[in-house]
Formats: sequence, structure tokens, C-alpha cells
Amino acid sequence: MDTSNSIKPYCIGLDLGGTNSVFGIVDSRGNIKATTAIRTQGFKTAEEYVAASVEALQAIIDQVDGIGNIKAMGIGAPNANYYKGTIECASNLAWAKGTVPLAGMFSKALGIPVAMTNDAKAAAIGEMTYGVARGMKNFIMITLGTGVGSGIVVNGQLVYGCDGFAGELGHVTMVRENGRLCGCGRRGCLEAYCSATGVARTARELLATTNTPSLLRDIAPEDITSLDVSIAAGKGDALASEIFQRTGKMLGEACADFATFCSPEAFVFFGGLVKAGDLIMNPVKQAYDSHVMKVYKGKAQFLVSALDGSSAAVLGASAVGWDI
Amino acid sequence: MDTSNSIKPYCIGLDLGGTNSVFGIVDSRGNIKATTAIRTQGFKTAEEYVAASVEALQAIIDQVDGIGNIKAMGIGAPNANYYKGTIECASNLAWAKGTVPLAGMFSKALGIPVAMTNDAKAAAIGEMTYGVARGMKNFIMITLGTGVGSGIVVNGQLVYGCDGFAGELGHVTMVRENGRLCGCGRRGCLEAYCSATGVARTARELLATTNTPSLLRDIAPEDITSLDVSIAAGKGDALASEIFQRTGKMLGEACADFATFCSPEAFVFFGGLVKAGDLIMNPVKQAYDSHVMKVYKGKAQFLVSALDGSSAAVLGASAVGWDI
Repeated sequence: MDTSNSIKPYCIGLDLGGTNSVFGIVDSRGNIKATTAIRTQGFKTAEEYVAASVEALQAIIDQVDGIGNIKAMGIGAPNANYYKGTIECASNLAWAKGTVPLAGMFSKALGIPVAMTNDAKAAAIGEMTYGVARGMKNFIMITLGTGVGSGIVVNGQLVYGCDGFAGELGHVTMVRENGRLCGCGRRGCLEAYCSATGVARTARELLATTNTPSLLRDIAPEDITSLDVSIAAGKGDALASEIFQRTGKMLGEACADFATFCSPEAFVFFGGLVKAGDLIMNPVKQAYDSHVMKVYKGKAQFLVSALDGSSAAVLGASAVGWDI
Repeated sequence: MDTSNSIKPYCIGLDLGGTNSVFGIVDSRGNIKATTAIRTQGFKTAEEYVAASVEALQAIIDQVDGIGNIKAMGIGAPNANYYKGTIECASNLAWAKGTVPLAGMFSKALGIPVAMTNDAKAAAIGEMTYGVARGMKNFIMITLGTGVGSGIVVNGQLVYGCDGFAGELGHVTMVRENGRLCGCGRRGCLEAYCSATGVARTARELLATTNTPSLLRDIAPEDITSLDVSIAAGKGDALASEIFQRTGKMLGEACADFATFCSPEAFVFFGGLVKAGDLIMNPVKQAYDSHVMKVYKGKAQFLVSALDGSSAAVLGASAVGWDI
């Protein structure tokens, strides 16, 4: 079937994670028609990784009657440069030393346009395309996972900046004196406090510096995760609640600063920490309301992604394809 | 002469200040062809203000052979809402109680399109149209005057946000504990430290809390201005230099945070404080370089507006007109 002149109803999304690479073929409404996956690691070169990916993809491409039905491919990947279509300095990918032109390699192998961005920006495009931010022109996506990621939409466009690396709101400085060391090598970043790992650090700090009884004391400090904190807080544990209060307060104050930049109509949250629900979101909203500049008060909604967690990353990646 | 179908070579710019309203007719290269001014105050209603403005304008419109040569008018004004063309809650304008649809009123009186924004955003558009930011798609304008204003350009467009009030970077919180009271009613804002008035406050604080000899001790503390600090620092006064060091350090650290939003290719500075030159700009750049995230290092230029200070506001306002 020659579909070169007809509307192509699907995009491929690739969520390129440190462990797995998940592929999905998605229609314009965000329905995933077919999925497959390969392990991300174990390849010596990017060429090998792309070849294995294309082989896995071929089976699901056949399920939608061939590449002629596919408009484009979008990739969400760490250290992705949108402008250049490259992965740069991705230290956790053995086959991606230096600068790898991954978008171009997939495009050549598949014969369709391919665009690539990082996972938080892909999530923002996903929310705008299929999710709670549909129709919004100005919003900020905040992903609370191992790190704190962000994707900023202004005038209906993702903010990439002069180099493709704009939107690293996890690395605004929230504590200017003696702040925690962050993974980026600097101190006091939002991410060092409000990521899942930041929450676990706060737990260990509070356990070490207070005598407050807590369910968390039954766990070896080095084993505590944000999920443990969430479970304990859900059971009414005072110390766990205090951890979420502190985390939410800092996040809300950070959002109040973010509002001065782009006065968004919404903040959209996604990621593991968000599963704590009101335990984290209520302190965020309270801190925002009490800190934000008067002119912005009451204007921004605080939303939680409604995309299915397990497929959200693939959906986000596919949305990058629609955006080409 | 009927010029309705020909290229209209001029825009009117209005710099609506608290004391004076300055009008200029400007060509597309930023040459001011004619200017006039009225006092801003002394009118009972917005209608009276507009009528007096139009009367003053008529003389300079005649100098460029009539309104048929004028494409549009741009207004830079405090509390301006770009989307609505209104001035809102401008407490220092007696004739502008509540919400005044000033753009529409001028448009009706003159028969040309009129757009309005605040002075810092007008300055950003002015730099992009005639100044050091020509050709730039991503930059941040920072005005250091009585307050700290900003205009943010992303993908070649001014960032207005959901309500027209985005870009208040003077009100990010830089000091989270016991910060200075800011004019906005909150504490610890950048503006409370790095505006001209903030610099004078720092001077008074350092004079009161140290014994460092200083030329500034010859001035009554309540009379000290940022210009006095600049003059003293220029003479090698150690205390005055320390004031600029502190001010520049905070500004540079704030810019490092701003980079995480939009990874700008430049920060463009304008306003009274900038006249201190390297005394303020060197500490800004040093603090930025030592605080900014590695991925942004070395990418943003630090520029000072080259537009003539006395006409920059009118030029900026006129550029808002070209942008319609």
C-alpha cells in the first residue's frame, strides 16, 4: 500500500531508559497500538543498539501495516540534545560515549523523521498532546523521580533555549548556605531535596537528628526509599508527614519562583513521588499560595498527570514525533 | 498623500513614566525622527490624559507628513497588561484608577493599532529590534533601576505567560530566612538587594555594622544613593567595592538560576546601576561562572545595553509597535 500521500496515523515512541528501551506505536489520541522492548545495555556501539531496536520494531511496525502508516518517531532519552538529535555525555550508556547522532541513525534506518529530547520534555509534550495539559499554551511539567526534571511550555512551544538544554529547574539553588551536594556537582539544588532520593535523604537526616518515634525506624537507614516514607505517612506517621511537609514546602516555594518567569496556567506533576497524592501536593499548594507574588495568586492550577505511569514515557516520546 | 497601501515607515513610542510621558516617532532602524512630551500627572481622567497626549503628538505627526506614515504605536507603562491593552492598579497614576483600556483609547483617537507592555518588556523588545540583542532568539533583559525588571525572550517571542504578567524576575526569592522586605510585600526578593534602592540599603547596612573607613561616611545614611556608591567605588573605596561585590554576587547567582529556565544566549543589562560598569558587571560574571550548571557554562554573553539611556525607553516602546 502506497501511503506516501495519505495521512499517516501513527508515531513511534521510544522511551530510552538506563535499563530498558520501550517502543510503542501510538495514534494521535494517545492509544498505544503495539509495544515492544529491548534491554538498553549490552551493546558495544550505537550501531548495534539501533540495529537491535529496528529488528524489534519491525514486528510491531508490521502490526500497523508497515512503515507507510508511520509519520515519525520521537525519542525520550537522557542527555538528549533536541536541536542536534544527539545524545551527549550519557555516562550510563556504554555504547554512547561522546556525542551520538541517534535521531539521524534511526531516521536513516527507518526512513522517517526522528526527533529526540530528554524525558521530562517528552513528558511535557505528552501532557500537551494527550494529557491534562491539552490546549494549554503556558505550563510547567515537573517530574519527581530519581531526579527532578522539568519541561517548560511557553506560547505553546517547548522551551529549548540556545543550546537545547533549557528547562533544568531541578537545579535552581534553593539552599544557598551549606546546601546538600547534588548529583550535578553543585550544592543546594532543588533536586537534592525534592527528588525521591532527596526525600530519602531528608528521612535519614530527621531520623538521625530527632527522637520522634516513627515506623521508619524499623528500616535500616540506608535502605529507606521515598516509597517507605509514603507508606508510613499514609499510616499517619508523624515523622513521615513532616518529611513530606518539608519537601512540599520547598517545591511550592520553588514553583512560586518559577511563576515569575512564565506565569503558567498550570504546574503538572509526574513521577514516583506524586503517588503520595495529597500528602505531597497539599504542602506544595500551601507553600505556593503563601509565597507567590500577589499578581499570580490563584492563577495556576496544580495538576497531577493522568497518563498511565507505565506507558507515559512512551506516550511522551511519541508526542515528540507528532511535534516534528 | 494616500499612504494606506504603501509601507508605513514609522512607529510612535510612548514611555509612560510616573513623572513624564515622552513620545517619539521612530523609524525601523531606531532613528528618532521627532519627540515631544507632556507631564503624566495632573489629569482627572484617562480621557483627559489621552486628549492631551494626542494634542502633543499632532505636532510631531505633522513633522513626518501625517498619520498615514505611521504603522502603529507602542506604549511602555507600569502595570501594563499586554494581552488586554490595559493599565491595572497603577497606584501612582491618579487618572488610572482600576483598569484603564489605554491601548484601545489611543488606537481609537489616532486610528492606528496600539500595543502596550511594561517598561522592562519594552526594553527587551527594543534591544531585539534596534540594540545588542538583534538577531537573538533567546535572551533575558534585566533592568536595574528603582526596581529590578525583566523581559524574557524565548524562541524569538516575549514571554507573557497566561496573564500577560510573566517576567518578574526581580521577585524571585534570593534570601529565604529573614530576607529584606520588598516593595511587593514579600521578603528576600532579588529586587530588595540588587535594585538601586537595594544597593543603597546594603550601603546603610554595611556602614552601620562595620568600622571600615569609607567616603560614604561623609554622607547622611538616609541620603546615600547607588550613584554615591558608584562614585566612591570608582575612587577605590573598599566599602563601596564590597557593596558592588555583594550585589553582583547575588545577581550572578540569580542569573545562574535563570539559565536553568531558558538557557539564554545573553543576559542584557540596562539601567542606572549598570553605569557602574565593570564594578558591578565583573562580580556578576564571576558569580555566574562559579555557580551556573556545567551544561550552560560559557554559553551566555553578559551584555550592557548600548541604547542611549535617555531615549532607550521611547525606542523600546516604539519597538512594541513594530511587533504588532
